[in-house]
Amino acid sequence: MIAIAIAPPAQPRPTRAYAALEKGGAMVPWHFERRAVRERDVAVKVLYAGVCHSDIHSVNHWGGEFPLVPGHEIVGEVVEMGAAVSGFAIGQRVMIGTIVDSCRVCEPCRAQMEVYCREFPTTTFDGIDRIDGSRTRGGYAEYYVADAHFVYPLPDGLDPAAAAPLLCAGVTTYSPLRHWKVGPGTTVGIVGIGGLGHLAVKFARALGAHVVAFTTSPKKAAEAQRLGAHEVVLSTDSEQMQAQAYRFDFILDTVSSTYPLDPMLRALKLDGTLCSLGLPDTLDFAPVTLAMGRRRIASSGAGGTADTHEMLAFCQQHGIVADVEVIAMEQINEAFARLQKSDVHYRFVIDMARSAL
Amino acid sequence: MIAIAIAPPAQPRPTRAYAALEKGGAMVPWHFERRAVRERDVAVKVLYAGVCHSDIHSVNHWGGEFPLVPGHEIVGEVVEMGAAVSGFAIGQRVMIGTIVDSCRVCEPCRAQMEVYCREFPTTTFDGIDRIDGSRTRGGYAEYYVADAHFVYPLPDGLDPAAAAPLLCAGVTTYSPLRHWKVGPGTTVGIVGIGGLGHLAVKFARALGAHVVAFTTSPKKAAEAQRLGAHEVVLSTDSEQMQAQAYRFDFILDTVSSTYPLDPMLRALKLDGTLCSLGLPDTLDFAPVTLAMGRRRIASSGAGGTADTHEMLAFCQQHGIVADVEVIAMEQINEAFARLQKSDVHYRFVIDMARSAL
Repeated sequence: MIAIAIAPPAQPRPTRAYAALEKGGAMVPWHFERRAVRERDVAVKVLYAGVCHSDIHSVNHWGGEFPLVPGHEIVGEVVEMGAAVSGFAIGQRVMIGTIVDSCRVCEPCRAQMEVYCREFPTTTFDGIDRIDGSRTRGGYAEYYVADAHFVYPLPDGLDPAAAAPLLCAGVTTYSPLRHWKVGPGTTVGIVGIGGLGHLAVKFARALGAHVVAFTTSPKKAAEAQRLGAHEVVLSTDSEQMQAQAYRFDFILDTVSSTYPLDPMLRALKLDGTLCSLGLPDTLDFAPVTLAMGRRRIASSGAGGTADTHEMLAFCQQHGIVADVEVIAMEQINEAFARLQKSDVHYRFVIDMARSAL
Repeated sequence: MIAIAIAPPAQPRPTRAYAALEKGGAMVPWHFERRAVRERDVAVKVLYAGVCHSDIHSVNHWGGEFPLVPGHEIVGEVVEMGAAVSGFAIGQRVMIGTIVDSCRVCEPCRAQMEVYCREFPTTTFDGIDRIDGSRTRGGYAEYYVADAHFVYPLPDGLDPAAAAPLLCAGVTTYSPLRHWKVGPGTTVGIVGIGGLGHLAVKFARALGAHVVAFTTSPKKAAEAQRLGAHEVVLSTDSEQMQAQAYRFDFILDTVSSTYPLDPMLRALKLDGTLCSLGLPDTLDFAPVTLAMGRRRIASSGAGGTADTHEMLAFCQQHGIVADVEVIAMEQINEAFARLQKSDVHYRFVIDMARSAL
């Protein structure tokens, strides 16, 4: 503590990391300087970083500037705080998610729904810092520095490695389940039992809904029930799908590829909503399928600070974390390859203590 | 009156009509027998029949059985009633819309939202009669016979020719505006100023909303304002479109072709809905545009009996009817051709009294 207290304030922090040096490139060791903490910043030593599908997509497609350091599911330990920060302590375990700043003044920001900021929020990696214009770099790194408004205490009692994915996969599924009022008396479908879907099943069950998992893989049926699904439907079986007609108040679709959506839409009741989280390039459906039940297709971002705080409290109350495979940073290229084949149960998390950077 | 009273009950009625004899065929004179009235039926001498885009689409694409008689915007005069019919009188002016029967027992039917019948409602033409299995034939004909539950009194004070389109174009636009609570304090966009759109502008204005018309045609700007729009946006002008970002609570899109939808979706506020009524084969948008504002795309059918009764009362109260071009049946092929080029202000209506059948 004394060593930290007398450290010269506001020094940039040399930081070892893994980065893609160019679009589509492999992940390799790299280093850069994290910015010096500003007045309202918290500096965090990263302990765990979850591996999200969008990490891969950013490296291969979306990336704006390279080298690119992915990672937006961070669990770490506070190592430094700006003068105006309160509510955190050195050594405290904290979490950082998909966004680290926003305009703070638009309607969604004032409602703590910063992920819907009208000026677009600053993403945790490959975003543009709103103060110095630099490119943000993610959590596949020794340190992260962020405004304390976007830093969350890790709830006591949650395994830190398994909690890391809550900050993206968790709030991304929790937020729409809550927004569309999934709970006792509602029948909800969860499509795709992967990183997002396995958490969605846990949340929907804990919220008190009747939960039906849709999967293309017969092998996942028992798994889905273990996670909390009351029923499992094989979505490739047209007879099973026809039997679902008009059953669902809400369907949360986590599939990231384009597939024929009409059979799924027909499973919605009158005025039901299918929320597609996978962000495929297009959705394949006939508008008349919507018309026949005044149905809606929606999508949803991750979550703002209000939803994230609520989600973390809910996870603590219900003991919900992700099912994870913990890896060392050196395994990240292998993990990317396996994740692209959906070969993970259900989220990779990098353990920095096991990693040689 | 005496002649009718002593007519033998339950006789089929020879009926002259216009029909397409084969898929894609021209409309030609044809005749058939309307079924004898059943216990709960009303027989109507057709006075006016509106010409809907879906008439053309049925002739050219959807049609299940030919000869096909289109027409589902009917104003007529009661000429006969079944024994169990009450609430109507011989000679009364009445209306018939897009559906003439439904299962009557499913949840939407019990809520008088029969257009969402889970067994699918019986359409006014080219549907399958639920009792005798025959193919229904539409309003381009001397007579129509329908269950009284799906027959509506023409409100006093409304011009009968201009009222005919209310039964499809009217309720199709009124119903979603009401469902999505368009009214004082909401900003609503109406896309496409045609048969549906011109009525949607009138309804939205009368409901008390701030109404913005979107059109691709600069010539329609003054027209849209005359119809009630507070503002007109040229949707082909990207600068004007960008200025609409996050403005709209609800957008009612009446365009029946596929066009790039993302600029329109970006005009929606957080949690806003775009309801597409035109039933194009596909909708062209990026799911991420939905995600960025938790936006929804929906569609909506025409209207059940509850919405239709409410809409007609609203039209009477506010003096709303369609802007129509009245034609004789002999002009129907020309009208179809002009309608396909959107060359009509704003709805063709066939005047049976002027028609040689």
